[in-house]
Amino acid sequence: MASPQGPPTSYGVLLYPGFEVLDVAGPIECLNTLTDQLTDQKLTLSIIGRPVDGASQVPAPVSPANPQDGTPESDRRIDSFNFKSAQIYQPTHTFDTAPPLDILIVGGGWGSLPTDKVAPEMAFLKKTFPSLRCLFTVCTGSAVAARAGLLDGLRATSNKANWAAVTECGPRTHWVARARWVVSGKVWTTSGVSAGMDGMLALLREQYPEEQHPGLVDKIANEMEYRYEADPSQDPFADVFGAEDVPPQK
Amino acid sequence: MASPQGPPTSYGVLLYPGFEVLDVAGPIECLNTLTDQLTDQKLTLSIIGRPVDGASQVPAPVSPANPQDGTPESDRRIDSFNFKSAQIYQPTHTFDTAPPLDILIVGGGWGSLPTDKVAPEMAFLKKTFPSLRCLFTVCTGSAVAARAGLLDGLRATSNKANWAAVTECGPRTHWVARARWVVSGKVWTTSGVSAGMDGMLALLREQYPEEQHPGLVDKIANEMEYRYEADPSQDPFADVFGAEDVPPQK
Repeated sequence: MASPQGPPTSYGVLLYPGFEVLDVAGPIECLNTLTDQLTDQKLTLSIIGRPVDGASQVPAPVSPANPQDGTPESDRRIDSFNFKSAQIYQPTHTFDTAPPLDILIVGGGWGSLPTDKVAPEMAFLKKTFPSLRCLFTVCTGSAVAARAGLLDGLRATSNKANWAAVTECGPRTHWVARARWVVSGKVWTTSGVSAGMDGMLALLREQYPEEQHPGLVDKIANEMEYRYEADPSQDPFADVFGAEDVPPQK
Repeated sequence: MASPQGPPTSYGVLLYPGFEVLDVAGPIECLNTLTDQLTDQKLTLSIIGRPVDGASQVPAPVSPANPQDGTPESDRRIDSFNFKSAQIYQPTHTFDTAPPLDILIVGGGWGSLPTDKVAPEMAFLKKTFPSLRCLFTVCTGSAVAARAGLLDGLRATSNKANWAAVTECGPRTHWVARARWVVSGKVWTTSGVSAGMDGMLALLREQYPEEQHPGLVDKIANEMEYRYEADPSQDPFADVFGAEDVPPQK
């Protein structure tokens, strides 16, 4: 299903317990709106999550509740949902059943820090990365990619509210503070949460060049009524949180 | 669980087949971030959807795939997901099991037009509206509320890309074109898709006044790295789509 050339056709999104909703919903909304525009092209999306215990081909439901402070699994009766555990997503694939992917989207969230909580996802990233055309991270998703070694020697950014915690995950990465998103090698890293939408619109602009697809990205942003940032250097949140560049350690 | 005074404590989100992801994910992200800030307050969220056939207390999984053009239910094998039908949400409550709510969020999406596709949701809205403290619609969610008669005599807005289709659903409503959101009576209507985030941040600013909760809303927006619009009259998309005010019919 993955596509060696032309616009990407096979997208994946990695979900883990404690993911940040808008990190994934923002880019997905951009892509959903793309599919509304390109009804003659078949794009596929695979939502990839951990398997239920003992059944590697059956994905388990997942929520943005932080596994460290959420309602225990055993207590998830219908009358005891806390706010985040009420948001239940059903992945379509596990690590073992995911199809070949062109683009893999990895969001952040409290479930990703410390990164040892997402060891299964790091293993999947390492395995999948060589065959991807593009890895796309949002927010602290870059911490997961960094800890998996995939950002070594690259430039990258991440969310600014957790800048120190993220950048220490990638000692061989040049972390760019004032950036809505950064492209380096085949990795796109975006800043916090809603920056994923600006980054995804920029990625679509690259994949669907204006010459061949005039007005497409503007139309997507207009349909979303989203005032997107087209200049990646415009990032007011670096100042808000006092984030500064972190060069790779020698 | 609903709260007669003080900030709202019981939130609900209505999901129906063919809903627009960011319409609901945007406001939910604002509220998730609120719960990160207010760890001493218990807020509940109920995701309300249609029941599975013949079991009024068991909610059915729901996706943003438009029921008119999506993959048939019978064909949803793991290898035949189309893009939107891969996004599967599991509601926590049905119309019959939903708890008392302070705030009900109704997003839009292709599944809401024409509004006869959401007849069960309109019935739930009519039943629930009197006991709500606030009905909050995003995008064409206002068409559903209008067709249910809940916007009669009020001012309202909606998304601008489908302005004509929405406004004809509410002939006794004054439709305001140049508005990121409108507050009228106990109904908040917001413009298209991402406008739901600006509207929800404005609602939180009302419910958590700056005097008692200094900096709270700015902190939420900063954590989301979202450059929010605090002035509801700033709406560039009215011009983009050529939307004009529609006064109530005499």
